[in-house]
Amino acid sequence: MPTLNQIGEHAAIEALTRSLPLTGDDCALVALDDSPYDLVLTSDPLIEEVHFVRGTAPERIGWKATARVLSDLAAMGAEPQWLLVNLVCPGGTELEQLEKIYKGIHELIDRFDVHLAGGDLAQGPVLELHLFGTGRVPKGTALLRSGARPGDALYVTGPLGGSLESGHHLDFMPRVTAGQRLRESGLVHAMMDLSDGLGTDLRHLLRASGVGADLASGKIPANGTLEQALYDGEDFELLLAVPPHHTAALESLLRKEPDLLPARIGTCTANANHLTLDGIAVEGKAFEHFKK
Amino acid sequence: MPTLNQIGEHAAIEALTRSLPLTGDDCALVALDDSPYDLVLTSDPLIEEVHFVRGTAPERIGWKATARVLSDLAAMGAEPQWLLVNLVCPGGTELEQLEKIYKGIHELIDRFDVHLAGGDLAQGPVLELHLFGTGRVPKGTALLRSGARPGDALYVTGPLGGSLESGHHLDFMPRVTAGQRLRESGLVHAMMDLSDGLGTDLRHLLRASGVGADLASGKIPANGTLEQALYDGEDFELLLAVPPHHTAALESLLRKEPDLLPARIGTCTANANHLTLDGIAVEGKAFEHFKK
Repeated sequence: MPTLNQIGEHAAIEALTRSLPLTGDDCALVALDDSPYDLVLTSDPLIEEVHFVRGTAPERIGWKATARVLSDLAAMGAEPQWLLVNLVCPGGTELEQLEKIYKGIHELIDRFDVHLAGGDLAQGPVLELHLFGTGRVPKGTALLRSGARPGDALYVTGPLGGSLESGHHLDFMPRVTAGQRLRESGLVHAMMDLSDGLGTDLRHLLRASGVGADLASGKIPANGTLEQALYDGEDFELLLAVPPHHTAALESLLRKEPDLLPARIGTCTANANHLTLDGIAVEGKAFEHFKK
Repeated sequence: MPTLNQIGEHAAIEALTRSLPLTGDDCALVALDDSPYDLVLTSDPLIEEVHFVRGTAPERIGWKATARVLSDLAAMGAEPQWLLVNLVCPGGTELEQLEKIYKGIHELIDRFDVHLAGGDLAQGPVLELHLFGTGRVPKGTALLRSGARPGDALYVTGPLGGSLESGHHLDFMPRVTAGQRLRESGLVHAMMDLSDGLGTDLRHLLRASGVGADLASGKIPANGTLEQALYDGEDFELLLAVPPHHTAALESLLRKEPDLLPARIGTCTANANHLTLDGIAVEGKAFEHFKK
């Protein structure tokens, strides 16, 4: 049998979750009996020397772990509600460091009226946070990756690239409010958040929707080079597919959201799973956990 | 500031969660608007060389991680529903080992009609599972630790002690069905599951309820010595407080549950937080994460 270094994260997850009824979106979406809401569940790990380097300010570690979970919920247009925190650390860790991590968590959840419901503290070789978040959406209204149609315009909510270099991955603002407004607007066919880089994540949306896409290189807002905008990852902006007759209304809505720098970056095509940049096929490459 | 080795897990959790509205029970209990159910949330870590030794059969690792979460839900009388799995492992891990861990998870969740809703796979120095479970109880009916009253009889659902030595901690059956029957019966004042040992866990129930307890040494069902039954931990049996006028009905109910070997082990007293064994004060000692 192969090791994870040989096959990489995505093939391993596919092998392990073949039997799952619910995959392919940022969160799991589960129906609640006798409730006007669907429940949205997500979990995210944040591991020292994988998702942040040793010596990162503890407040920023807590912020990033929380922001990743809130971004997953935002990507479906959910209202975030509850957070559980599993914290792992070596026994020599100072309590003060953990208190600062919790300060970073609170800075963000207090802003969005999310509540810490519990968690666990355990000993392990490196510092890790495993955050579990729950949210809700009115039944049947969650925005999925699978709704894009040929002809839809593609938008992102802000500039992409350079996030690891600049430290933006440690202080980004998850698009919680914008995500809910976009869901409520009824203007959006499909939505997801950008964590692995536009060049990788867009392929997930194309596969889920059974469409292709052509991007306009001059329209992609980049921090740094176009290459960085496509492949760096950790941007945590939203990616939207919007039908042509709704683009004017959508742009008007996005302009009203503070902090967003939205851009129309391309168009969905009928050429399923085919991703082009100015009409030329885009190479698939990106950071993938485990793969060497 | 002190390190975790100096203050131990319990003091650290207390410091970190001072502001939490919901602590002290096995799970967080959250109200859902417009639903006849309360939502029950719990998370549990399982870490190599902390919760299991390197070389443990992977099916048993998956089983134990899942059984711990289901036991937390059972302790509140909840119906378990959804499970998310964060799996951490070194890059050299064989996919086959992860598949066997998932096999262990499925053996247990399939039995209780719980569904795997998602999760994440990430690289880290040792094998870890972080499981997040959700369940539900009819609104306002969850069994808590805080309901015990002086005069209540104390029961456990099976023998205690020796779980780590015998390997029982890797194949125990969480009391999911019994937990729900006990909640539905209306016979029980307070309930929790025994993970850290009766001598430790009972103190949590006493503190939450504002009562004391006297245990009868001859009545505590032990695998091994009485010392082991009190302090080994990892038993995952249920501990119940039952008013005197309900003990006959309760015993009749417990006899009908397969696999249980229930025992009446003592009585709650009015002497708050005072734990005695045959009338003699019991020393507080038990395994605690971090503390050296």
